[in-house]
Amino acid sequence: MAITLGGNQYGKAEVRLVRVDRDGERHRVTDLNVSVALSGDLTGTHLTGDNSKVLPTDTQKNTVYAFARDGIGEVEEFGLRLGEHFVRSQPSIHRARVGFEQYSWDRIGDRPHSFSRNGSGTRTAVVTWSEDGVQVVSGLTGLTVMNTTDSEFWGYIKDGYTTLPETHDRILATAVDAKWRHHTHPADWAESFEQAKDDLLTAFAETHSLSLQQTLYAMGRRVLDKQPGIAEIRLALPNKHHFLVDLSPFGLDNPNEVFFAADRPYGLIEGTVRRDDLPEGDAVW
Amino acid sequence: MAITLGGNQYGKAEVRLVRVDRDGERHRVTDLNVSVALSGDLTGTHLTGDNSKVLPTDTQKNTVYAFARDGIGEVEEFGLRLGEHFVRSQPSIHRARVGFEQYSWDRIGDRPHSFSRNGSGTRTAVVTWSEDGVQVVSGLTGLTVMNTTDSEFWGYIKDGYTTLPETHDRILATAVDAKWRHHTHPADWAESFEQAKDDLLTAFAETHSLSLQQTLYAMGRRVLDKQPGIAEIRLALPNKHHFLVDLSPFGLDNPNEVFFAADRPYGLIEGTVRRDDLPEGDAVW
Amino acid sequence: MAITLGGNQYGKAEVRLVRVDRDGERHRVTDLNVSVALSGDLTGTHLTGDNSKVLPTDTQKNTVYAFARDGIGEVEEFGLRLGEHFVRSQPSIHRARVGFEQYSWDRIGDRPHSFSRNGSGTRTAVVTWSEDGVQVVSGLTGLTVMNTTDSEFWGYIKDGYTTLPETHDRILATAVDAKWRHHTHPADWAESFEQAKDDLLTAFAETHSLSLQQTLYAMGRRVLDKQPGIAEIRLALPNKHHFLVDLSPFGLDNPNEVFFAADRPYGLIEGTVRRDDLPEGDAVW
Amino acid sequence: MAITLGGNQYGKAEVRLVRVDRDGERHRVTDLNVSVALSGDLTGTHLTGDNSKVLPTDTQKNTVYAFARDGIGEVEEFGLRLGEHFVRSQPSIHRARVGFEQYSWDRIGDRPHSFSRNGSGTRTAVVTWSEDGVQVVSGLTGLTVMNTTDSEFWGYIKDGYTTLPETHDRILATAVDAKWRHHTHPADWAESFEQAKDDLLTAFAETHSLSLQQTLYAMGRRVLDKQPGIAEIRLALPNKHHFLVDLSPFGLDNPNEVFFAADRPYGLIEGTVRRDDLPEGDAVW
Repeated sequence: MAITLGGNQYGKAEVRLVRVDRDGERHRVTDLNVSVALSGDLTGTHLTGDNSKVLPTDTQKNTVYAFARDGIGEVEEFGLRLGEHFVRSQPSIHRARVGFEQYSWDRIGDRPHSFSRNGSGTRTAVVTWSEDGVQVVSGLTGLTVMNTTDSEFWGYIKDGYTTLPETHDRILATAVDAKWRHHTHPADWAESFEQAKDDLLTAFAETHSLSLQQTLYAMGRRVLDKQPGIAEIRLALPNKHHFLVDLSPFGLDNPNEVFFAADRPYGLIEGTVRRDDLPEGDAVW
Repeated sequence: MAITLGGNQYGKAEVRLVRVDRDGERHRVTDLNVSVALSGDLTGTHLTGDNSKVLPTDTQKNTVYAFARDGIGEVEEFGLRLGEHFVRSQPSIHRARVGFEQYSWDRIGDRPHSFSRNGSGTRTAVVTWSEDGVQVVSGLTGLTVMNTTDSEFWGYIKDGYTTLPETHDRILATAVDAKWRHHTHPADWAESFEQAKDDLLTAFAETHSLSLQQTLYAMGRRVLDKQPGIAEIRLALPNKHHFLVDLSPFGLDNPNEVFFAADRPYGLIEGTVRRDDLPEGDAVW
Repeated sequence: MAITLGGNQYGKAEVRLVRVDRDGERHRVTDLNVSVALSGDLTGTHLTGDNSKVLPTDTQKNTVYAFARDGIGEVEEFGLRLGEHFVRSQPSIHRARVGFEQYSWDRIGDRPHSFSRNGSGTRTAVVTWSEDGVQVVSGLTGLTVMNTTDSEFWGYIKDGYTTLPETHDRILATAVDAKWRHHTHPADWAESFEQAKDDLLTAFAETHSLSLQQTLYAMGRRVLDKQPGIAEIRLALPNKHHFLVDLSPFGLDNPNEVFFAADRPYGLIEGTVRRDDLPEGDAVW
Repeated sequence: MAITLGGNQYGKAEVRLVRVDRDGERHRVTDLNVSVALSGDLTGTHLTGDNSKVLPTDTQKNTVYAFARDGIGEVEEFGLRLGEHFVRSQPSIHRARVGFEQYSWDRIGDRPHSFSRNGSGTRTAVVTWSEDGVQVVSGLTGLTVMNTTDSEFWGYIKDGYTTLPETHDRILATAVDAKWRHHTHPADWAESFEQAKDDLLTAFAETHSLSLQQTLYAMGRRVLDKQPGIAEIRLALPNKHHFLVDLSPFGLDNPNEVFFAADRPYGLIEGTVRRDDLPEGDAVW
């Protein structure tokens, strides 16, 4: 019979977990959205509904909460603990993918237990744990940035469908979605994340851009230059267009000051920067 | 004839306007979502399609962009300019409501023309301009805050549908949606806004809360205490529930540390704090 | 003291309730999002945190589920039962607003217990119950409609900010958001809703439109013409612009065939059609 | 040098295109969201900002609109035309991915040019065109379905984190997200899509389910059984949990009638059903 089950995984998605560390007067908050996906010897449940090798998604959720009791630490560490547990404790589970979104909170005026959510980007992580190996991908998403000058776009292909004029001074804005795969694990995951975030921001700001692709490459390269343990970074950068408004019908000039910020369509630039002397990883992104 | 046209208004909604002030090397960004709504002598267009008293929404949009050419300043000021223009220039338009959402941007590392969008709440304003008077409502929305202690809830009504246990220590989290009506106009709209935002945050953090209503009143009262020119403030505070996870099935205690952050349902607490010696305004909120 | 508590209400919002009627083999599904808001003698909880007059939002949620045990019927009826209960059972509660969104499901191929969610608009209702009177507002939202011809827009005001050309043939598209207040209660709420929905759709389709305002009035008027028990209808109609794409740079004409559907900005037309021989209601919309 | 550019692509995303076919009195509407992504010889723009091999995303957008002038037909056909154009006309472009979302519209009462948007699922397609071959993936997303009985879940693994009780009668609800890869092209793409949609719905309804995995496999298998030209189908099915509400505190039973529909977390079941005698395709999904 030619029809068969192919690749598959299952799990509990978007487990919203908030942990308050109360050691002493000064609280700390960890605010996570956790998604587990398991794969392995799961033919039975698909073909006959035999669930004897299925760890229910409800149990996965319980496990996430129970493991948080001992503290979470950095998400990459928490993912490693959870992934190892699922694979080692269940013979039918051969691979666990544990994904995280982390929302950060700032203290309100340095008070010990009052916080304001910081909406400037979300930290992410994906840990893939199998007996054959472990892969950790860290990242961030939703970090919106803008350069109001130092961006050009010219010298491109012209064909019969071209109407775009060349420009030597435009706004460049994007919402950074970046994921980077660790070849070796850093001593401090939080520090590694902050370094990468800072490198992305700095490279975005410092690059005099002839194309968003050039900016993308500069951003990715900066992250790899600074952290030898990172093997690869993948960036997806929407070009959030800001169109100069034509004010001439109203007798006004517009010296690059008044813009219409468009929703759709948008350019979408996706690219990878990698070390070519390292093997491709087996990560799930 | 008993069937007739009642209250109505029309306008262009969600005009996305970004202005870059380029005076000198150090740029400034104003990022707005502007919505105009006009009302007046509009029976003709409703009853017969006679548009001779209709200023098209497209023209309203053009006007917003053209007025931005001269600079925007604070949104309340921009709204006053726009509102006056629409009413004074068009005999058929008797009232203009100009609403704003303002997104704030932080500098990246104090660079002169690189910015990162600050996602911690949106500033709002609604200016209502008519020949009979002008009302300005300022506000903010989407500012999510949390106290990890100093919140209780007990002593409430019990009936046959009560299952909620009383608590003397819970997480209190909400997303602040606040709008305040100005009786007199402040010397500096930006300073007034920052003062109000700071007062809302501080009152939230400082109030030992027996109910979210108590916190709401304290927040509103603080804003009015500090700014005599504000006549009234309206607050809508969702109670973003954080439920303590029962870890006892796994042989674990949970000393107020591990929480499930729920999406729906949520409590919704809405209230007004006002000066009772001032007249009700004619504002559109 | 001049600072005081103004208008306020509180309740549980977005209680997701699904009821399956299993009388016989052929199941029926009622899928609701219920929001309760209570007001009354609530000064204590705001000023001092005295909750002795507060029926917790958690109890409100429980009540919604418990009342569903006996069957829901039409949402207006369910709202009347719930509203009366809250006000009559609690001396401190003087008014209850119960709001509904109802999602409809179609049978899959007339099977007895398999359903597919119908995404074409959401039925709504708001019941306001107080000792002084009861008001019922029914409605629908998110019903997106389009006429590909029979829409014009010309004869409007021209000023210094006008660039829009007049048109005698455009696409007219909107997402209907309608709410209507009942003066008397219909014998059959479901039938009344279906009649109103059909009237809105039919009037939209049949009106040769010179302005979206004209279409709005025709839609509202049709609903009132057909149901004498409806006192008033409020419509909010976004003008979902479809712009003809200029294909002339590519040597092509565009005889009203290829359009760009824009997200923002959009026109927003809001209006009321009412019977002027009926009193204004005391409804909360 | 060890750091290098890896995989990359770029294009215009979410081009909103509406086409009205006006042949005769009876109009037809095609409503699309089109996303183009091109890859090829793009090292220059990434490393030095040399754009001489870049076809601007703005030009891609123009091309989509210009090609629509001659009619769209089925989205798979439109994608093949566009993909071939981009690759054949530009030596630097080696592969084009053209993705579609299609929103369907129903006639209002069989009128010739009035329509109501049908919100019950979105048709999708992804065409990947390169000199080496062409792959077409069709699909649908956002089709929400529910069985109110004939679903069980028991016999699963129990461990120290298990609290879920076994059940022999539960609600099974999901939002179907399906994509299928064509080995050969059907004579009629629209008919093939309708057949697949009908097979997915029918298999969902007819399967007495012991697990959502079993339902997933049955759905996928049905599609492949009916259409020999389909090589593979990938399904992602969220388990949209409906929890029976415990009404016993209120002295009420709940014979599988009153449910709480939860948002998060949810189970997520992902799986592939494929013909194992066909080669893996080179499709971009």
